[in-house]
Amino acid sequence: MKIADRMVSIKPFEVMAILARARQLEAAGLDIIHMEIGEPDFPPPPLMIEAAHQQLKNNPLRYTAAAGLEPLREALSADYQRRYGLRLDPRRIFLTPGASGALMLALGVLVNPSDHVLIADPGYPCYPNFIRLFEGIPRRIPVGPDSGFNLSAAGVRDAFDERTRGIILASPSNPTGTVLSAGALHALVSEVMAHQGFLVSDEIYHGLEYGVPSDSALTVSDEVFVINSFSKFYGMTGWRLGWMVVPDAFVDAVEKLAQNLFIAAPTLPQLVAVHAFDPRNLLELEARRQVLLERRNVLRDGLLELGFQLPANPEGAFYIYADVSKWGPDSGWLAHHLLEEAGVAVTPGRDFGDHDPERYLRFCYTAPVPRIQEGLERIAHFLKVWDPKR
Amino acid sequence: MKIADRMVSIKPFEVMAILARARQLEAAGLDIIHMEIGEPDFPPPPLMIEAAHQQLKNNPLRYTAAAGLEPLREALSADYQRRYGLRLDPRRIFLTPGASGALMLALGVLVNPSDHVLIADPGYPCYPNFIRLFEGIPRRIPVGPDSGFNLSAAGVRDAFDERTRGIILASPSNPTGTVLSAGALHALVSEVMAHQGFLVSDEIYHGLEYGVPSDSALTVSDEVFVINSFSKFYGMTGWRLGWMVVPDAFVDAVEKLAQNLFIAAPTLPQLVAVHAFDPRNLLELEARRQVLLERRNVLRDGLLELGFQLPANPEGAFYIYADVSKWGPDSGWLAHHLLEEAGVAVTPGRDFGDHDPERYLRFCYTAPVPRIQEGLERIAHFLKVWDPKR
Repeated sequence: MKIADRMVSIKPFEVMAILARARQLEAAGLDIIHMEIGEPDFPPPPLMIEAAHQQLKNNPLRYTAAAGLEPLREALSADYQRRYGLRLDPRRIFLTPGASGALMLALGVLVNPSDHVLIADPGYPCYPNFIRLFEGIPRRIPVGPDSGFNLSAAGVRDAFDERTRGIILASPSNPTGTVLSAGALHALVSEVMAHQGFLVSDEIYHGLEYGVPSDSALTVSDEVFVINSFSKFYGMTGWRLGWMVVPDAFVDAVEKLAQNLFIAAPTLPQLVAVHAFDPRNLLELEARRQVLLERRNVLRDGLLELGFQLPANPEGAFYIYADVSKWGPDSGWLAHHLLEEAGVAVTPGRDFGDHDPERYLRFCYTAPVPRIQEGLERIAHFLKVWDPKR
Repeated sequence: MKIADRMVSIKPFEVMAILARARQLEAAGLDIIHMEIGEPDFPPPPLMIEAAHQQLKNNPLRYTAAAGLEPLREALSADYQRRYGLRLDPRRIFLTPGASGALMLALGVLVNPSDHVLIADPGYPCYPNFIRLFEGIPRRIPVGPDSGFNLSAAGVRDAFDERTRGIILASPSNPTGTVLSAGALHALVSEVMAHQGFLVSDEIYHGLEYGVPSDSALTVSDEVFVINSFSKFYGMTGWRLGWMVVPDAFVDAVEKLAQNLFIAAPTLPQLVAVHAFDPRNLLELEARRQVLLERRNVLRDGLLELGFQLPANPEGAFYIYADVSKWGPDSGWLAHHLLEEAGVAVTPGRDFGDHDPERYLRFCYTAPVPRIQEGLERIAHFLKVWDPKR
């Protein structure tokens, strides 16, 4: 009995080890500022909690259909109309166990063994691992300031060859917080379509933009897979409910794969999420976005003042990707000492790819402003005595 | 952009099409007796609902660690001690999105492309599809009355060759409701261990036995993967919470795969499930088991009286697998007409494999006794005028 070969290339999250060490230090009585976790400190929105209490009283919480509850598929369709001016047949919308479940379904119906799939480097650490799960080959495209730290039409044109089957795109991006412009998105989707490739657009941070809009890939083409979730913008991380919009021709394949892999997404979150589009809830979410904007400004300005370089313009999600190369050749080493000596937890670039990861740290602005300020003070203090050569 | 090759061999659930047609007939005003769905009509246990209300008031419901909440892993470990006299390190216990998530993790860390995996035919329809997901090859072993409609040590000895990597075992079995004896289980696990194969034991129906005990494969060896869930015995289907016990050497691989594929199992169900082992809840579950036993007896005796043959002794889960060959050569045809003309929904054998499926129908005793009796009367009436040749 031995471990399957694919597991050699599937990597654990670096951030999990950092979080575990941070918890250890906390258990030993130390105070840690958490800038490593991509999960804001907000409780679930009050209207969601209220809806959950109601449903617990009345609903037997049995399995739903594999594709999800009809009223929720219809509510999501209506939200695409409201948000992006799109008309989507609810048949094309599948509820999934988190956006992770959506990614699994998309790649499961798309990737054959040895297929190449293009992804941005840096990018979300799970993408290459999902591709490898299906014996595909992730091809990391180095991205930097010139393309807003994301895939571009030109980059895809250069990289697409006969083994390439498609791309995974994410905007706003984790770990950089950058947002693709409508023009760049349009060019990119069109480029992939011209190659008859598949496009999986991870739109999980949509709604969390600060001053710039995010367009859905669906505004460019119906022939794309769009992934989203109630975790980030809707503030329901632990509920594990995501969704996916698929092209018409893939509805049957995705449905039978969902039946087999999940049976169905969890029922209570589906019943609750129908109320996520209530105007009162949307007001609450807008207030939270304003709070995140303020946190973003405090962290961004503080990091700039300390001399950090921010080549990735942090306009979305809750991440800042900072160039820390002036403090030494290895951001992992810096992150280690920031946690151990300053009590500030951040994630080194190597969690997100192979493209100059040692230059970068990812900072999350998921903690309240006073904690961010305290973190900045600790970093300032730490850097005064920091010697990368020791 | 085309559908991945694996999707050709991944089949939809037959039972879902039947359920959809039954719902259509209901929408048209007809009354349908549901004997097709493997989900009892019980609401969630009251103590679980109470715990959910409590947690909604106080808990922010963030992501848990990928392996799950520590108190729940410890509670499960204690339950293995109580139920089977086993001492399990909680590190070996992973909470998953349903038993489906556990099956995904197990096969993901075990199956390489082209590996053969042995499964019982008839068996749970998802097993072969999970194996194909990882480019493995399901090998269906025809099983019948002589081995209690399950895999046996002798059957595994005959089938195991150089391409075989392991087996998936399920007792109590879906669709047959049969339960392996302690002796048969011991011999089977030992046989697989002797071949150095992997053994995934699906114990999702444990606790739902009627007069016979179910032993866990863990009582024979620590080197097995055991899958279970809060769906069936604990009555929490739509909550989507399962678990898996893994061998020590696989803990790290399973943890990193869980991080990547799921992030974590849903949080509220985990918080609630800690209370599943409360003696008051266990009393409620025992009362439900008694109700299922009564339903089993009514359905079994009724089917026997109508002349159905029951070669599979229904001692567990909530299934009866009946030989209906005396009413024609095709159980699918019979199931179709039972639904359309008698308003009784059942699942034909072809949902569960290739071994004589046209001889069998699966009946579920998940509905109340009066509904089962009404179903039996309708079947009796229907069979009086049934002519399989039309």
